[in-house]
Amino acid sequence: MEKRFEISFLLDIYGNLLTEKQKYIMDLYYNNDLSLKEISELTKTSRQAIYDIIKRCDKLLTNYEDKMLLFKKSIEKDKNKKNILIDLNNIVSNINDDELKKIFMKMKKDIENL
Amino acid sequence: MEKRFEISFLLDIYGNLLTEKQKYIMDLYYNNDLSLKEISELTKTSRQAIYDIIKRCDKLLTNYEDKMLLFKKSIEKDKNKKNILIDLNNIVSNINDDELKKIFMKMKKDIENL
Repeated sequence: MEKRFEISFLLDIYGNLLTEKQKYIMDLYYNNDLSLKEISELTKTSRQAIYDIIKRCDKLLTNYEDKMLLFKKSIEKDKNKKNILIDLNNIVSNINDDELKKIFMKMKKDIENL
Repeated sequence: MEKRFEISFLLDIYGNLLTEKQKYIMDLYYNNDLSLKEISELTKTSRQAIYDIIKRCDKLLTNYEDKMLLFKKSIEKDKNKKNILIDLNNIVSNINDDELKKIFMKMKKDIENL
């Protein structure tokens, strides 16, 4: 996976472990695609300081993932969830009973939200 | 929930964010039910130092949970999963088709592992 995307996912998962300022700058850089120069002007912080914060937070986030593996586990979980939903779709498409169909549709939604 | 149980759960979730020594001592105290004195003798560390480490780690773990809410979310998820499995059990108990029953039993297992 491209590093930029990966860090953006890690930011979603571990962002709350950063300080407010770190999280804000990382969000501007990775999710809003602002340049170092733009973030520097917006936050009235030197370009070098912004660069240092981003590098440091890249490391922090990667370090959290190395220890907790939440991103890796979420990818596996999503894959399993998708397979269950495919199974369920196959079953639903072969059911004629409206009442049963309704129960399955609710179940599908519940599983999606797991 | 009793604090002791809660910390034990938090240790499961966030334990890898502690140092090896912190995690070891917390595990002895919360999961193996050793006394401060026993841990002190086992680790050749003063009773006061063990007490301080446990207090500090209680705070660290609680702080991680305040920020990430993984424990709170896992309780909700388990509740939802349980409800889905109850729905699924009700359906399976009304099915006569052996092939379909097999598919549902597999699905049940997959959902349990989500």
